[in-house]
Order: sequence, then C-alpha cells, then structure tokens
Amino acid sequence: MARLISLVEDGHPALPEVMAALAPHSGGAHVIGLTGSPGVGKSTTTAALIAAFRDRGKRVAVLAVDPSSPFSGGALLGDRIRMEQHATDSGVFIRSVASRGHLGGLSFATPQALRVLDAAGFDVVLVETVGVGQSEVEVAARADTTVVIVAPGMGDGIQAAKAGILEIGDLFVVNKADRDGADDTVRDLRHMIQLGNRERSVDWRTPVVRTVASRGDGIPELVESLEAHRNWLGESGALSTRRSERARSEIEAIALAELRRRLGAEGGLVSADLASAVASGETDVYAAASQVIERVTGRAAPPSD
Amino acid sequence: MARLISLVEDGHPALPEVMAALAPHSGGAHVIGLTGSPGVGKSTTTAALIAAFRDRGKRVAVLAVDPSSPFSGGALLGDRIRMEQHATDSGVFIRSVASRGHLGGLSFATPQALRVLDAAGFDVVLVETVGVGQSEVEVAARADTTVVIVAPGMGDGIQAAKAGILEIGDLFVVNKADRDGADDTVRDLRHMIQLGNRERSVDWRTPVVRTVASRGDGIPELVESLEAHRNWLGESGALSTRRSERARSEIEAIALAELRRRLGAEGGLVSADLASAVASGETDVYAAASQVIERVTGRAAPPSD
Repeated sequence: MARLISLVEDGHPALPEVMAALAPHSGGAHVIGLTGSPGVGKSTTTAALIAAFRDRGKRVAVLAVDPSSPFSGGALLGDRIRMEQHATDSGVFIRSVASRGHLGGLSFATPQALRVLDAAGFDVVLVETVGVGQSEVEVAARADTTVVIVAPGMGDGIQAAKAGILEIGDLFVVNKADRDGADDTVRDLRHMIQLGNRERSVDWRTPVVRTVASRGDGIPELVESLEAHRNWLGESGALSTRRSERARSEIEAIALAELRRRLGAEGGLVSADLASAVASGETDVYAAASQVIERVTGRAAPPSD
Repeated sequence: MARLISLVEDGHPALPEVMAALAPHSGGAHVIGLTGSPGVGKSTTTAALIAAFRDRGKRVAVLAVDPSSPFSGGALLGDRIRMEQHATDSGVFIRSVASRGHLGGLSFATPQALRVLDAAGFDVVLVETVGVGQSEVEVAARADTTVVIVAPGMGDGIQAAKAGILEIGDLFVVNKADRDGADDTVRDLRHMIQLGNRERSVDWRTPVVRTVASRGDGIPELVESLEAHRNWLGESGALSTRRSERARSEIEAIALAELRRRLGAEGGLVSADLASAVASGETDVYAAASQVIERVTGRAAPPSD
C-alpha cells in the first residue's frame, strides 16, 4: 500500500494500470476531511479519532496532506510520533503525501492516494490538511464529510471566515473546549452556520461538537456526528454527487498533468524563451498563451519559439 | 484601473486586447508579497508600509488575495476600514481579488491584476495573501520580494514550517515584537534560515526585522531591507529570473483556462457522465483522463460519453 502511494506521488507510468485494477473495488470507505488553522489541534483530534474508530472495530487510514516544505521533514516529526501509538496496529495506516509543485500538486496526488486506501478496504479514511489555503481547503472539501476544527482564542470567527473554511464544514469541532472563550466560539460558529445555511438551503443541520481531544473528551459525540452525516449522505443522494465531483477534479488533474508531460519535460507548457519574452514585455501574455494552446491542440503551425 | 481588474476577475473576452496594450509598460513596479498565518498582523503591516512608502514619495498599490468565502464580505471589512486612512490619497490604490474556484483560481487572476497595477505606474505593489496554503504561498513566492510575517506565540517555528512558508521568505518580519517570546522567535527563525540557506546556497543574506506595526516601530528598517533586496535582485540578475518564472505561470494559467473554456462551459474538461462513471467504479480514472485528452487534442475519435 505504501508503495502504491509512492507511485502516485511520483506520477509513475504504471499508475493507469494500477488505477484500472483498483476501480471496481472503490467506494466502501467513509472519507473524512479534517481542516483548520495551524495550532487548533488537528493532529491530536486525528489521533483521538483513530483510537475511537478502532474501538468500534473499524480499520482506519490517515492521509496527512503536507505542503512539502524542505523544513517539514523534521517539523512534522512531532505529529508522527504522537500517532505512533498506532504504529504496530495493522488496522491503522498513516501516511503523508507531500506534493507541492509536483505535477498537479495536491489535486493530483490526494484523490489517487485516497483511491488506493479505499480499495484496500479501510472503513474510514481521514484526510488531514496541514495548511489553510485554497488547495488544502479544496482537498478537504472534496471528502465525503468535511470537519472544520477551530479552537478558542486561536483565530476567532473572522480569521476562520478569512481562511474560507467556514462554508465547507459539514461538522464543526471546537477543540480545546476547556479554555476560556469556548462558549463564545461555539456561539459565533452557530451564528455563522445559520447565515451560511440560509444562503445554501442545505437540509443537513450542521453540528458544533466540543472536544478536548488531548484527553478524549467529546470524541464519542464527534464519531456519532460523523456517522450521522455519513448516513445522511447516503439517504439524501448527496454522497454520489460529492463523489462525482471528486472524480471530476481527479480526472481533470490527471488530464492536465498528462498534457503538461506531452509538451515536454522541464519547461512544461511554456518554454523559457516565451516566458522571458513575456517578462520583458516583448510579447504579451495572451499571445504567448495562444502559442501554447496551438502546441497542445496541434491546430496551427508550431510557433517559432 | 478598478474596472480593468474586474475584467481580469471575470475573465472578460477583452482581456487579450487589454494585456497586449499593457505589455510594453510593465516592469517598473517593485512587487512585494506579504504572507503569514492568520493573526500575525499582515494587514497592519501592510497599512504601515503604505504610509512609509508614501512618505518617501512612492505610489503604492495593494492587492489583497482573498480565497473568496461567501462569509468574507463582512469579515474582511475591518481590514478595509483600517486601510481607509489612505482612501482619499490618489497615490494609493487598494483592491482585493477574490478568485477561488474561478477559472484558474488565484494563479489566473493575481498575476494579471499585478500586470495592470504595474503598467499603471505604481512604484510599489504589495500583494497580501489572506490564507496560508499552497496557492497563497505560491502567489506570494512569485513576487519580486517575498516577506514572511510571524508573531511571537502565534504559530511558532514548527507551525510556520508546516505551512511551508519558511523557505520562500526573502525577508522575515517578527511583528508584535514587544510581546513575550519575541527573542525566541527571532532566534528560531535565524536558525531555520541558516539551515535553509545552506541547502539553497543563495547569496542573499535573509534579514529578520522586528516590528510593532501597529505603532510603526521597525517599519523604516523594513522598508530599507525591502529596498536592499530590490537592489540585490537587479544586480544579481535574480530579478529577470523571477519575473520569467512569474510570466511562465501566468501563461500556463491562461492557456489552461482557455483549454477548459474550449471544452465547453459548465462541465469544464470533464462531463458529468464521465465523472459519475469514475465515481461508481465503471470507468477508471486514467481511461477517463485519456478520453478528455483526446477531446482536447482532437487526436482521436470523439468519445461516446
């Protein structure tokens, strides 16, 4: 399994064959995305969820989506160690995907890695995103169930709204709920959810769960809410819609990576000469893009660059 | 200018013409990216920099890159108001670009909006990113000069490393430097920069500047460091390399947006039927991607989907 995920990260030529073999076996896992600002306790919550799902006899995989900093090898070690209480349990698999700037980035590697874990028969796949940004939010939002974690004092409601993560939550967790300000955070979240639901008119009542993940408080309630959401997805038909959306973005990411590859190695779609002509103002950016499109589609004479 | 940036956000059909007209006028502005976790004081630092550059007679534009939450209209208002002390100054222009999920997202809109501001003759263009994630970091990293802002206590070194922002900083700011722990934060940063530089063997000595942006402390030193970096970029030849890289990603984003458009409206590259066939396991994801590529390149019979 670890080797299959490495193939995904490397964009290995055997991937099409692998994915074709896995296709009929997918769809069994409940894919849960966990997102939130740095410091809210995503890793601790993930670790607590692993334990809770194991207690219920479920096999659990974790995919930690890591923006691939050259510094992070060491920096993330703390998290990995925290999770290593499960290192000897064959019902638990933990893996990080590091993929910034690689092929299509997170949108290329993550859904395919999910597909591997799903086909391997895990009941629950937790996707924990490390950063809070466009790509990370999109990855988390493409789960079956998206959990947004906040903590009192750490990034108030406005900060969460800024990060654009409020409207993607199917479920909110106020972690570190023993701290001052937890009540305010819960109230602010409920208020914002109400505003959001009115806008979207979704018929799922978004819960706000209080946890102190470091000592397991609130984790049973969180697991119950996750299972309730999974049931709602199935009954409402939302599950197949969400999974089609995920498949769509996965197909698109693979197609775009392949187009880039076909246009030749290193420079991707755009040659160095063309880029520097645009940088210096000799060529304008749309004229350059037209040349690139002609190269892709073969619908005009090759440009002179 | 505001209307031109709206054209960019909308992907308006007149953009190619507009960008062709602007091309010969670009390259004069010093593009400065500002990034950091929520709560470190990016907006306050931006406001202080505007004032400092205005004092030096420079015209300043600010592009606030916003992940486009439906909630953020109100949430970002506070920042805008804080900056409105400059609202009546014609040497200052402030605009946010909201672009998640739109065309190519941030990578489509931001460089073109920069091009508009550059061609309009601003001496300095500040790009402030709201989230901390892959796309935001990439946007900030494609500036001429990238400033990473941290604050004591708020997201320590490990959190910054996790977010993947340490290795992109040309310049670090420890804001709120009057708080406890500022010395530790400065020391940690210096240590991490040393490790990073050794890896990259870059001949720019990355400064760490202490500020209390809310009262202007350290802002003159920050401006000096920014100008020193701009000079270094010019002398070392790094400026044209960076700008070529920025042009390259801009061309690619435009070409990909155009390819998506050509393949027909709503569904983008991937039809709903194809996505749901992959979601249900009937078709595998690479076979689906091949169909899409054939549609793009016209190199095979159109698929039956």
